Formats: sequence, structure tokens, C-alpha cells
Amino acid sequence: MSLPPLITLLTDFGADSPYVAAMKGVIYSLNPAARLVDLTHSVPPQDVRAGAWTWEEITPFFSRGSIHVGVVDPGVGTSRRLICAVLDGSIFLAPDNGLLSRLARRTAPTTIVALTEPEYWLPQVSRTFHGRDVLAPVAARLSLGLDVGLLGPPVERLVEISWPEVLVMPGKIQGAVRSIDSFGNLVTDIPAAKLADVPTDPERIRVRCDEHETQGLFKTYAEQPPMTLLALIGSSGYLELAIVEENASMMLGIRTGTPVTVEWT
Amino acid sequence: MSLPPLITLLTDFGADSPYVAAMKGVIYSLNPAARLVDLTHSVPPQDVRAGAWTWEEITPFFSRGSIHVGVVDPGVGTSRRLICAVLDGSIFLAPDNGLLSRLARRTAPTTIVALTEPEYWLPQVSRTFHGRDVLAPVAARLSLGLDVGLLGPPVERLVEISWPEVLVMPGKIQGAVRSIDSFGNLVTDIPAAKLADVPTDPERIRVRCDEHETQGLFKTYAEQPPMTLLALIGSSGYLELAIVEENASMMLGIRTGTPVTVEWT
Amino acid sequence: MSLPPLITLLTDFGADSPYVAAMKGVIYSLNPAARLVDLTHSVPPQDVRAGAWTWEEITPFFSRGSIHVGVVDPGVGTSRRLICAVLDGSIFLAPDNGLLSRLARRTAPTTIVALTEPEYWLPQVSRTFHGRDVLAPVAARLSLGLDVGLLGPPVERLVEISWPEVLVMPGKIQGAVRSIDSFGNLVTDIPAAKLADVPTDPERIRVRCDEHETQGLFKTYAEQPPMTLLALIGSSGYLELAIVEENASMMLGIRTGTPVTVEWT
Repeated sequence: MSLPPLITLLTDFGADSPYVAAMKGVIYSLNPAARLVDLTHSVPPQDVRAGAWTWEEITPFFSRGSIHVGVVDPGVGTSRRLICAVLDGSIFLAPDNGLLSRLARRTAPTTIVALTEPEYWLPQVSRTFHGRDVLAPVAARLSLGLDVGLLGPPVERLVEISWPEVLVMPGKIQGAVRSIDSFGNLVTDIPAAKLADVPTDPERIRVRCDEHETQGLFKTYAEQPPMTLLALIGSSGYLELAIVEENASMMLGIRTGTPVTVEWT
Repeated sequence: MSLPPLITLLTDFGADSPYVAAMKGVIYSLNPAARLVDLTHSVPPQDVRAGAWTWEEITPFFSRGSIHVGVVDPGVGTSRRLICAVLDGSIFLAPDNGLLSRLARRTAPTTIVALTEPEYWLPQVSRTFHGRDVLAPVAARLSLGLDVGLLGPPVERLVEISWPEVLVMPGKIQGAVRSIDSFGNLVTDIPAAKLADVPTDPERIRVRCDEHETQGLFKTYAEQPPMTLLALIGSSGYLELAIVEENASMMLGIRTGTPVTVEWT
Repeated sequence: MSLPPLITLLTDFGADSPYVAAMKGVIYSLNPAARLVDLTHSVPPQDVRAGAWTWEEITPFFSRGSIHVGVVDPGVGTSRRLICAVLDGSIFLAPDNGLLSRLARRTAPTTIVALTEPEYWLPQVSRTFHGRDVLAPVAARLSLGLDVGLLGPPVERLVEISWPEVLVMPGKIQGAVRSIDSFGNLVTDIPAAKLADVPTDPERIRVRCDEHETQGLFKTYAEQPPMTLLALIGSSGYLELAIVEENASMMLGIRTGTPVTVEWT
């Protein structure tokens, strides 16, 4: 017996939301053998950018052929499109509002279609919950082998949203905090690749975030004593600021969007 | 190979509670092929009414034949009964304290039995966690095909709890906020059916909740600008009040039970 | 078709963390038929003792042969070992920092090996997320039948951490609050066995926690009226203090570590 592809769910419904369970009920009703994984439901409400970062960070750990459903959808019920995109061999279902844009900057989708064929949806579609009424049934049918091309007409390009660019200057890189993880660590948008040739010696490199500064680039948290602010390349491959054994975001009062500067000599 | 029915779990143990994992361990130990779905574990502690609303809203999205386990059980260890009810082809396991009463108002159960036969429970039953020691093993055995009738003697009627009634008057309906969703939207107990014939034009209909008032009946959140209070039929089929892109419950300080009035001309 | 063993996950990543999803992606990529259960991800950050208690309490409800993965790992990236231990027929994967020490006090592991063979890990191992890069792929391979002995060399003994001992005196037992459950109940480290012969009559037994005192030893919450502080043997087999229908931890401001004294005549 061959296993159906995994379906992953990412939403902004909040941890443990019964709305997620409704989506799962719809999926299992159409494909009783479906296999579901929660990516996270704690995307901040309507924060498409945060959802896009999480998709970029987590979906690469899943096999090609997985079906990733994303519901961060402030425009639900308006004329915004719902799309299905094939990217790097996996299928993504989402509103066309930028949720897929971090991943699409890395790899161009090979196929994009708009979801326009109601025969693959629930018979009754609400105006406020297309995750349950459109995306969930479409995901279930794709997991049963439905062809992406049947879902609707091809779309030329995804909606783009602007992303603050990381600035690389001689001896200096400027980016920003792009997310706070559950330990309160400050994950920036500065990728490891941009720091590959910079020194790590505390005498030669300084990292600044808001009014706070730390020296050196470390490999892991325990290289510094508790309560110390340190910079390191985090597990997602981006520069991260952490306070050892503490919650940096709370202690320093720092939120996403705060500028981060790396300077070296 | 035929798949065993899904077992869903709804509790008030809190999101991510290890007590839920204990129930899952018990179920998998008895039926290694069991298939489990979390409905939610964020029912407010001991709030039987909130659990009853969630069951009414979410279980219809699951296939007939599913096994729904509900543990909101302030009377655990007292003489309150545990029951198994068959309703609309699905099986419900719960304390007999009203948790099933919203669903039972819609459709009468075809079978109700009291759980009295200890051979289907864990060998040792605690006085404070019947979800783990009685309901979980019974759910596992039902998923293996055990007959409901073996669990104990028939019960004539479920315990009833009182529900505030929605009042329909000429040009006016009065209900209440019955739950707050994870976006802070105020979900009322006024069903869409009762509003089918009322006008939606902002000049003809007003919705009031506490001291707050909004005009018109909309179809989706994005029909009004951010920060606007609006009324719409939510995805669960009930009248809902929301502040566009904001948390209405927090901004207005409104809790469940607050009266909601709809008036039209 | 025989089912692969369950893999359970316990971490301090926080409820609904996408980091957990990354671990799941790694596991499913290596064993598409893997079967995963979340124990909890709400272990307080870096609180190895709290994780050890949860493992002791919950893992016995899972079948022998299960694979339990624990990631509470303040020393990630340092020279601390990662280990695989076989205990009571089940497999445990964790940093060797005491996370397994509550269980190991009950039953000695029959096998302990250090994880030193990188061929079973992800090809690239970060310095800050060994749960994803080492433990998850090892768990997946064990679920496919890999022999524990291949993971690395035997280890003679686990790292021990100190545990406050429960003091038993004539007519008196002294312990401490070891965890707060999601209802706010105060779970102590005083096991039921040590209370088997003490009287339960309110006139003969007093339980004190901080400045608060209650009389009698009850069987379930509902034996006392709402708002009453009462002592009982909780579902985990330890003495517990609860306020009926309320959150004792919040109402009394009590945290883990607070001494608890039982005295009887």
C-alpha cells in the first residue's frame, strides 16, 4: 500500500484552534487515509510576512511531493485569488497574497494555477473561511492524486510583496529582526552566506540591535555565560541574537522589524 | 486494509497538555492502529457550555462513524455518569453533564448507554482522571469494533442544562455572545437561519453589543476598513461581531454572555 | 503490514512551535510511515527537571517498544553527550543532562550508548538544534529497525542531577511542589505510596504549603465546595493540592519548589 503524501497546515488561527480541527475533518472526510502535520498555527494574526518566513524555514525539511496548505488570509471573501503552486516538486495551496513569496524568491514555481473550479470545493462555501471550504477539500483531493491542472487556469505570476532588503556594505551589513522564536531569540533576515567571510573574533566584530550591542560571532548559546547577549548563526541559517538562558525579546523589549547592524574590521 | 474510525479529542486540559498525551498513550496501547485528531484542548477550564458549542460547531465536519471523546468534567469522581451516545451515526463519549446537549438539541441520540462495565476500562481507575482511565480505553475498544451496547445499560435521557434562548420579536432579535474565537471575534448564539429574512442594508439594520453598535450585515471582514466594528454571518453559521484586522474582544472588553441585539426596519 | 513503533516528542520549544514541525519533517522524510505523538512542548525553557517529571509521568502510558525523544537541551553544541537508552523495553533519545533521571531512578536502563556515529544524522548538523539534526533522524532510523548498538559506543552511566529528597519522619512527611498542571493544581513530589498508611480524616491530618493549610486527604475535587483548598492523591500518583474549580497556583501565588508538609496524629 503506498502512502498518500503528507499534508501540512500553517495558519494564523492560534495554537489549538478548533478551526484547524474543522479543516482536518474536511480533509479526512474526503481522504480517510490522509496524513496531516501541523506546521504551526501561531503565525501572528494576518501577518503574511511571518507566515512566509515560516514556510521558507520549515517546508524544506519535508519530502518533495508534500502538500503545504497556508491560511493567513486577511482578504478572505474579497477578489484576492486562491492559488496552487508547484515549487521544487511540492505543492503549495494559499491565498495569493505573498505567503509564498519567500520560497518563490529562492525557486521559481514550475506551475501556478488559480483555484476557480468549485467542483473540488465543499458544496457550500462560506465567505469567511476559505481554508476550510476551499483549500482543505482541494488538499484532500490532491492527496488522492487529482491533477493540479484541473483546479483552474494557469496564473502567470504570484502577487509580490515588498521585503526590506539586507544591505551589504564594506565592513558592514544591515538587516532587521524578522521573527522572535519561542525562546525569545531574535532571528534576523541576515543569511549565514552573507557572513561567511566576516571575522568571528570578539575584537573584530560587533553586532548591534536597537541600543544593544554584542561582540563576536559564536557557534552556540553555551559559549557565553548566562544572561549574556550573544550573536550566532541560528539553526535556520540566519544571524540570531540571544541572551543565554533568557528571553532576549522580553528582556530587551525588541520586536520584529528592529534594525540589526553587523560591523567588522 | 480498512482504516479504523477517527477518534477526536476535546478537553479543557489546556493546549499541549501532557494529560492529553497520557490519553493518547492509553488509546494507542490498546489499538496501535488508532487514528487520533485533536479538536481542541483549550475549552476554558470546566466550562461545559463552551465545550458543547465547540462540539456542535466542529464535529459535523467529521465523517459519520467517528468517535468523539469529550473531557470537560468538573464532577469527576462523583456520582455523575459517564455515557456513550450514538448521534447521527457517530459515537460520543463524555460525562453526562450537558457537554452533548447542543448537539442533542439538533438530533436526538439513537442510543445512550451508561459506562458501567469496568472490563473495558484501565485495570486501575483514578478518582480524578476518568478521561484517561475510562473514556480513552473505551474509545480505543470502540475503534476496534466493540459494540456500544456492551459498555453498560441503556439510559433514557441525557442530563439537560439550561441554555439562554434567543428571543425573536417583530423587527428585533436578542441573543448573546457565546464564544470568542482566536481572532477575538465575538461569536453569538443567533443562527443565520433567524436572520435569513432581515435586511442587510446599513440604513435598515443595527446590531448592538453592550454599549457598542454597528450598522448593516456584511458578508466578509474586508468589506469594511480596518478598525471598523462590523456584523456578519460567521463561518460557523452564527451572527458574529468583528473589528476588521483587530481583536474585538480585547478592544471592547467584551466576554461571553454579553447580550447582543439586532434591530431592523 | 506491521506498524512502526510510535515516536513521541517532548521539548521545551513551546506549544505549536514550528521547530517541532521541522523535527517531524526530518522524521517523515526518512520514514514516511512514521507515527508521531506530541507528549508536550510546553516544558518550561531549559527546565530539565520539569521535563524529567513529565517523562516519568506520561511515558508509562505508552507501549513498550515506543521511541521517546526528549529535547530540553541548554548545553546544545557543547561537549554534553547525546544518548540513546533502552529502559523497560522502550527507547529514549535525549541529551545526557538528567532528562532521563527520574525514569532511571525507577528502572535501570539495560543499554546506554552515546550518539557518535554521524552516518545516522542529517548530513549537515547545526550547532544549535541537535533535536532536529541528530535526534530526529536517529529516531526515524530506529523506527525503521536500526539497531541501537550501531549508534555509538556504550556508556556506563547517565549523568545524574540532584533531586530534593522527600523526608519521612514519624507523623510527618516533607516534600515540595514539583509542577503546576494546566488547571493550576499543585503537584508535589510526595508519592501516594508514602501516604498509604496515614489517616485521611480531616481531624487527624493537615497539609501545609507555604502559609496555606488544609485538613484531610480527599479522593476527588468535588468532595469539597468551590473555592476550597484541598489535598488529594492526583491522577499521577502523587499528593496534589487544588482549589476546587479554581487555579490554586495563581490564587495562592505558589510556584514549583515551594515546600509541602503533611502532618498527622
